Amino acid sequence: MSKDVLTPQATDFPKWYQEVIAKAEMAENGPARGTMIIRPWGYGIWELVQSSMDALIKATGHVNAYFPLFIPNSFLQKEAKHVGGFAPELAVVTHGGGEKLAEPLVVRPTSETVIGDAMSRWIQSYRDLPMLLNQWANVVRWELRPRLFLRTTEFLWQEGHTAHATWDEAQEETLRILNEVYFPVLDGVLGVPVLRGRKTEAERFAGAVVTYTLEGLMRDGKALQMGTSHNMGENFAKAFEIMYLDRDGERRFAHTTSWGVSTRVIGAVVMAHGDDKGLRLPPAIAPVQAVVLAVKEEAIDACRRLVDELVSRGVRAKLDDRTDQSFGRRAVDYELKGVPIRIEIGPRDLADGKAVVVRRDVEGKQPVSLSELAGRVPPLLDEIATTLRDQALERREQMTRDVAAIDAIDGPGFYRIGWDAMGREDGEAKLRERAYTVRCLVTENGEVPSPEQDDGLIAYVAKAY
Amino acid sequence: MSKDVLTPQATDFPKWYQEVIAKAEMAENGPARGTMIIRPWGYGIWELVQSSMDALIKATGHVNAYFPLFIPNSFLQKEAKHVGGFAPELAVVTHGGGEKLAEPLVVRPTSETVIGDAMSRWIQSYRDLPMLLNQWANVVRWELRPRLFLRTTEFLWQEGHTAHATWDEAQEETLRILNEVYFPVLDGVLGVPVLRGRKTEAERFAGAVVTYTLEGLMRDGKALQMGTSHNMGENFAKAFEIMYLDRDGERRFAHTTSWGVSTRVIGAVVMAHGDDKGLRLPPAIAPVQAVVLAVKEEAIDACRRLVDELVSRGVRAKLDDRTDQSFGRRAVDYELKGVPIRIEIGPRDLADGKAVVVRRDVEGKQPVSLSELAGRVPPLLDEIATTLRDQALERREQMTRDVAAIDAIDGPGFYRIGWDAMGREDGEAKLRERAYTVRCLVTENGEVPSPEQDDGLIAYVAKAY
Repeated sequence: MSKDVLTPQATDFPKWYQEVIAKAEMAENGPARGTMIIRPWGYGIWELVQSSMDALIKATGHVNAYFPLFIPNSFLQKEAKHVGGFAPELAVVTHGGGEKLAEPLVVRPTSETVIGDAMSRWIQSYRDLPMLLNQWANVVRWELRPRLFLRTTEFLWQEGHTAHATWDEAQEETLRILNEVYFPVLDGVLGVPVLRGRKTEAERFAGAVVTYTLEGLMRDGKALQMGTSHNMGENFAKAFEIMYLDRDGERRFAHTTSWGVSTRVIGAVVMAHGDDKGLRLPPAIAPVQAVVLAVKEEAIDACRRLVDELVSRGVRAKLDDRTDQSFGRRAVDYELKGVPIRIEIGPRDLADGKAVVVRRDVEGKQPVSLSELAGRVPPLLDEIATTLRDQALERREQMTRDVAAIDAIDGPGFYRIGWDAMGREDGEAKLRERAYTVRCLVTENGEVPSPEQDDGLIAYVAKAY
Repeated sequence: MSKDVLTPQATDFPKWYQEVIAKAEMAENGPARGTMIIRPWGYGIWELVQSSMDALIKATGHVNAYFPLFIPNSFLQKEAKHVGGFAPELAVVTHGGGEKLAEPLVVRPTSETVIGDAMSRWIQSYRDLPMLLNQWANVVRWELRPRLFLRTTEFLWQEGHTAHATWDEAQEETLRILNEVYFPVLDGVLGVPVLRGRKTEAERFAGAVVTYTLEGLMRDGKALQMGTSHNMGENFAKAFEIMYLDRDGERRFAHTTSWGVSTRVIGAVVMAHGDDKGLRLPPAIAPVQAVVLAVKEEAIDACRRLVDELVSRGVRAKLDDRTDQSFGRRAVDYELKGVPIRIEIGPRDLADGKAVVVRRDVEGKQPVSLSELAGRVPPLLDEIATTLRDQALERREQMTRDVAAIDAIDGPGFYRIGWDAMGREDGEAKLRERAYTVRCLVTENGEVPSPEQDDGLIAYVAKAY
């Protein structure tokens, strides 16, 4: 099989996934089991995801900080449910500076505990609230069956941690992150249509009172959790003694939230948009939005001028002047990498004052006059973004079925079923035996339920990554 | 002593340093020994340092990637000099996922080895060169005498690693980083005048053929190494078998470089610019460049309009409308934090159509008409940047002396002495006994010496952090 050809998705989706990540030079396994090397193409995507999300995190009033990688083991013991959730996944440092440590250090699986401890010192009065923190960091959770981006022992993420005076304020924050930060990035920037809903008790984050989630559907019909936002109520504040003096001089527990999105979402971009030719990147997160290929040496100057013009219009454009290499090989490489627009200029095109424009989202090549081309690219990028999202949405709709009983749940895609009709937790347990989980609960109108709502809930069921 | 008052620098500089970092809410010790919590004010500074440096790293053709935190112990053994340099500083993970590991994992002290290994796979032919990689990451080096920002067990940095076909190209890269990336950021953006020079053999990075350095002078007369750039020649390529086929089909070793700048430079900003009232931040790295203080409630609306106008002019401006808190306490807080411009508006100012402008770099308050104020701020920020750098430069010049023999070296500041006159390595060894080190070698004209230059060198000697 040629170096450029991928196993078709329909033949073996997991194999396709592995191959596309390797051949697009996105990532590879690190030397220590479960770790990942994110290559420049993959990291370039992450940088763009990161900057679009960071802007919204800041626009909603949060500030970034940085907390230590190493956490004393005793810290994790403070919140029993929390440590229970993470114990089997921890990496432990026992030696440092050539000596055995008196107390082993845990490599952070999340910074929840160390931030909780800091908040207990930083928060004294209602004036210190709300405290709205975010961190971009690497975390470690031991992974026995690693898969690049989806499950790796070390991954990159952002973790938000906030403290508020009241339950209502914490709840407002939890939903603000869901709706004003995560949704616009995942659904908008990444173009992956996501369901927003509440997790069932069984799927809730350890220690949270309520967990909200954003769930995407991959092309193989499996769901992928792309972000979560938790209202911890007073649970964490009690474990870490995060207290404040209110306006009346009364000492009260704060209400905290936490929320995270990781490099996992890159896996979602691959599996929600990619096709048998490779990645298809939404323009907003494509490190190169338009590549200009000189077919032969004579076209290099014209290509360079076009690239300069595109860059001056704010397009991330790249020149490919490797005319000593096979044109076909180069074109296929950009298809694999998912570059949204490929512009080819050969000697004959040059004579005609034209270039050939190839979109990655739909089939077909189009000749465009060189004088108009640069101006056409920015709106075309917008169109590609819309098309990719529309295609993913259509696919999800085709793969979503209403069913009346759990016996009818069989095969890929989302199943919509009444939470009562499925027998609630009992049905959930039965489904889990068959590897299906309730991805989220929504209201009858498809809206995000309040923490209290118990009636008229609809469950979305699927197999998941 | 009041919460706001700092120990004067002249009384106890290390104590001043500790206090200013705590009171400006920049950072504090983490719960595990030697680790650091970078609070939002400190992290905001780092984000600005990072983005200005990242822009230049990319402008010079480098791409970012991400390599794993954990490195198999065997990797570090591959380069004997390298492991020798790091062995006593390593943190070792012996347990993961609840079990003892077959091979312990080292927490990266640098990613040199894992990147070297990746390059040996990614580089096959001359077409793959140069390979210009950079990484933003946390690294760990066990620290027995930690000091916030200056020496912490975990720190944040960027590490660049590049591979080239020839020695000359690697040397050009090593100097490009020194002169086109690090110098403009450290000397320009951070406003800390830095000497550029070559390290002596004794001070060279383990495994490097030549190490270049940028050295700043702190207000207590001690030097601080702010960045280094190393040409490793073929040393690392040989240890990691980084080889390529040249145009003639000959297999050759690549020539590699590495270079790094860390959160340490924040310590340099504190110690090069700070005074007895607190930090003094160069505007380019100030998370808040201008704070607008409403003295009384009546002024809040006018203050808010001014902040909006400043923001629309690209100024990072912040409103302080906490009129229920002491005005003096608030003003002192912004002095501590080093905000470059403080604008105060009280009811009487409002009636006069004026505001009071207080610069952090020089003494004195100035009334400015409200209608002109927003337009005056951007040039004033430029002026402050220049003044801070000029002040630091003047201070360095006052603290730099020419001496003819090492016996004359005694006290704070830089000493310039002929490398021959000081007896080269012999003199260096004698100075080290008295805690002085050769910070760098320059040519007679103060220029950066080539790797080969051996005659007519001048040594800059100082005590250092």
